Amino acid sequence: MTNYFIAEFLGTFLLILMGSGVVANVVLPKTKGSQSGWMVITTAWAFGVFIAVVVAGPYSGAHINPAVSLALAITGDFAWDLLWIYIPAQILGAAVGSFVAWLIYQKHFLETDDQGLLFAPFATAPAIRDVKTNFISEFVGTFVLIIVILFSTPAQLMNHDETPIGLGDLGALPVAILVWVIGLALGGTTGYAINPARDLGPRIMHQLLPIKGKGSSDWSYSWIPIVGPLSGAAFAAFIFLILK
Amino acid sequence: MTNYFIAEFLGTFLLILMGSGVVANVVLPKTKGSQSGWMVITTAWAFGVFIAVVVAGPYSGAHINPAVSLALAITGDFAWDLLWIYIPAQILGAAVGSFVAWLIYQKHFLETDDQGLLFAPFATAPAIRDVKTNFISEFVGTFVLIIVILFSTPAQLMNHDETPIGLGDLGALPVAILVWVIGLALGGTTGYAINPARDLGPRIMHQLLPIKGKGSSDWSYSWIPIVGPLSGAAFAAFIFLILK
Amino acid sequence: MTNYFIAEFLGTFLLILMGSGVVANVVLPKTKGSQSGWMVITTAWAFGVFIAVVVAGPYSGAHINPAVSLALAITGDFAWDLLWIYIPAQILGAAVGSFVAWLIYQKHFLETDDQGLLFAPFATAPAIRDVKTNFISEFVGTFVLIIVILFSTPAQLMNHDETPIGLGDLGALPVAILVWVIGLALGGTTGYAINPARDLGPRIMHQLLPIKGKGSSDWSYSWIPIVGPLSGAAFAAFIFLILK
Amino acid sequence: MTNYFIAEFLGTFLLILMGSGVVANVVLPKTKGSQSGWMVITTAWAFGVFIAVVVAGPYSGAHINPAVSLALAITGDFAWDLLWIYIPAQILGAAVGSFVAWLIYQKHFLETDDQGLLFAPFATAPAIRDVKTNFISEFVGTFVLIIVILFSTPAQLMNHDETPIGLGDLGALPVAILVWVIGLALGGTTGYAINPARDLGPRIMHQLLPIKGKGSSDWSYSWIPIVGPLSGAAFAAFIFLILK
Repeated sequence: MTNYFIAEFLGTFLLILMGSGVVANVVLPKTKGSQSGWMVITTAWAFGVFIAVVVAGPYSGAHINPAVSLALAITGDFAWDLLWIYIPAQILGAAVGSFVAWLIYQKHFLETDDQGLLFAPFATAPAIRDVKTNFISEFVGTFVLIIVILFSTPAQLMNHDETPIGLGDLGALPVAILVWVIGLALGGTTGYAINPARDLGPRIMHQLLPIKGKGSSDWSYSWIPIVGPLSGAAFAAFIFLILK
Repeated sequence: MTNYFIAEFLGTFLLILMGSGVVANVVLPKTKGSQSGWMVITTAWAFGVFIAVVVAGPYSGAHINPAVSLALAITGDFAWDLLWIYIPAQILGAAVGSFVAWLIYQKHFLETDDQGLLFAPFATAPAIRDVKTNFISEFVGTFVLIIVILFSTPAQLMNHDETPIGLGDLGALPVAILVWVIGLALGGTTGYAINPARDLGPRIMHQLLPIKGKGSSDWSYSWIPIVGPLSGAAFAAFIFLILK
Repeated sequence: MTNYFIAEFLGTFLLILMGSGVVANVVLPKTKGSQSGWMVITTAWAFGVFIAVVVAGPYSGAHINPAVSLALAITGDFAWDLLWIYIPAQILGAAVGSFVAWLIYQKHFLETDDQGLLFAPFATAPAIRDVKTNFISEFVGTFVLIIVILFSTPAQLMNHDETPIGLGDLGALPVAILVWVIGLALGGTTGYAINPARDLGPRIMHQLLPIKGKGSSDWSYSWIPIVGPLSGAAFAAFIFLILK
Repeated sequence: MTNYFIAEFLGTFLLILMGSGVVANVVLPKTKGSQSGWMVITTAWAFGVFIAVVVAGPYSGAHINPAVSLALAITGDFAWDLLWIYIPAQILGAAVGSFVAWLIYQKHFLETDDQGLLFAPFATAPAIRDVKTNFISEFVGTFVLIIVILFSTPAQLMNHDETPIGLGDLGALPVAILVWVIGLALGGTTGYAINPARDLGPRIMHQLLPIKGKGSSDWSYSWIPIVGPLSGAAFAAFIFLILK
């Protein structure tokens, strides 16, 4: 798997399959994990990062997030022109991941007609809709993600020419813990996209899929989980360059 | 313990003792963990894998799952004729594990006459019975299990001639985290057998044991947690061979 | 801290301070963790083991449990006459640990007159009182604890002349995970003493302390969390000697 | 980032951003994690420590707590005059961390007029107000924190000239687990400040910020989460010097 596109696709696919899956499990009716709460959701997203990094790490560095790719390009640790390979792979992987999660949970989607619940396993929606604070939430959450990654020494998980990370190795655990705590602590307002691909890919999928009773794919909100993470990541990269 | 049969038996016994035990603890009345939820169930299954791998890893590679044995045979990392040692050991270990869990919780089994609850600590049952989506759930869950194991470098946990894994060593943790996230995210529909032995052995035990008030052992469903995992594992092995 | 007595005392003190503390937090009224459930209880006991092993591991091997000391004596990994140093230290440490937890939560003890709740932070009590199954629960739980420790290679945490384990080191994590899963899966019946000192020391303390409104210290049950763990440990040691 | 002040500021900022954030998420209305319980709170504080140590560890040793700095000065592992750099950085970082958490959750602060809930994301308040037992709680909690850190070998996380700790490295996990279990087990009375900066910085911020409907910043209690931790830390340092 020397192809960066396939590695980023597969990593982001696994992340979103887990992420969309756990939200479906928790919010939809009659599942075994129905109403099992925030701990279940945040743990699964964290470990979705873990398995994505285990699989894609040795081949592409497992960015699985355009905000990570952008930040590493700014700091000089990643080639700018690879963004055009990485980012489409991430968005496509995310879209397909949410599609497969929907396939698995489709009978449970039929058990509700709440448009919010039918949307939640796909993309993020704010708990209280407010452009300024929603933007701040995504900006700060991604800032934390990126600043911690950049200050870790060495940033081995994110450079695609580093030593492979395998399942027999726990090198993927710290970044999983990082995503876990961001979700637990800062995810309560917007649902912590902190990753434009994670939000955009599944949002497109929600638009396209014939989900019975679905409502709007909420495109008016969709720029926040794109611009918020990218600007938070860029800010973190600049702070890192100043402080390092 | 150079005997593969004993190692696989003991590993799968420990896994299912933990797994059947935690389901009994959560679903049966008057236990200390009664109604403690999905996080408790998935954590115990994950750490059941952990201890099984710690014990059996150095001796048999700790497959503890026919789907793992099959996938490694397909990729050429395991001898086909050893399947006839590994798989019976796994099924027998699973059966005995669920028997001992029943021994421990037998007074709590007497506290309910709900046939679903009396069955749950043994084998899986779908939240919504639907052949197509139930099959997809088991197929995809096992696909994720196997593809992540195979892409990890090195797949040290799964080859029976690798360096031993001991309790002083965390080599068993990644595969536990992998099972954890599959359960959290994809287990909400069928209860994530993702392992034919895990389901079949305890189902046979449910059939045989004199559980007061028990209902059917649900044999009409039993092929899904066998064929779903095996086909998902085979598919993952083929994808791996194409991509690697 | 070359004195085994001090090391075992301090390790078991830390374990029971955490364990009695978390039970008080979960079962007593008006605490911040009141009714927070089985996950909170089992996690704290697991990590109580973790910190006990971090502190005492380099000095005494951190048995912190007479069942562990007995099993290692049977397998020949521990000197029989050291039992007379280790076991009293463990019981005393456990007693003092539960005393300090009571000091911290004493105002919350005054908020209930339920004798069961006033007893729970000290020693174990079965969910359903039944000699046979209660004994089986403690026997099997401790069997799992010991067999996994013994089959780990090397059993570094348990031999007092091994390389020190420090906080910068995760060598204490596997045994914590082991205790975590035993609690989650098998703790639902008797509350998983799986350690005679853990139960006896705090039971004595409950007898001695002037806890307002307290009931019996339930001495008629007290032999089960002593004999069950010791016999389960001995059985595990014999199985290990046969299989290894 | 060779400047100790910046490292301690950034580390403590991250810790309190996570800590204030998770309390806001759990206690305020209409968040996605509302009422998600003690496990969510303690996990986020633990992993807040984790990311703070990952970032600041290589530069300042990541004390992120005046009680840690004091204890290491007493044991001779830290220069006394650096306290005047470390402690102000810690208090300031904590204050700014709680400010940013408030920025993110500000719309949710507007959803309640309960003065206790409006205060909780900033500083600690006892479940039952009682000087003696509240003091004991903070004293013992911090004693455990420090004694475990000091007895770990080597105390690599806390010495600012040790090998850097990076994200690809799990060296920060044990101290996170330590804080996790202290919170789970001993946090139920006072909310486990165990860190004077963690409490004082956000308390000042609560006093200064224009939080609609806020009540008192409870300065009469504020000495306990300062003096309790410092004296518990000093006691742990003395015990360590005697026993080591």
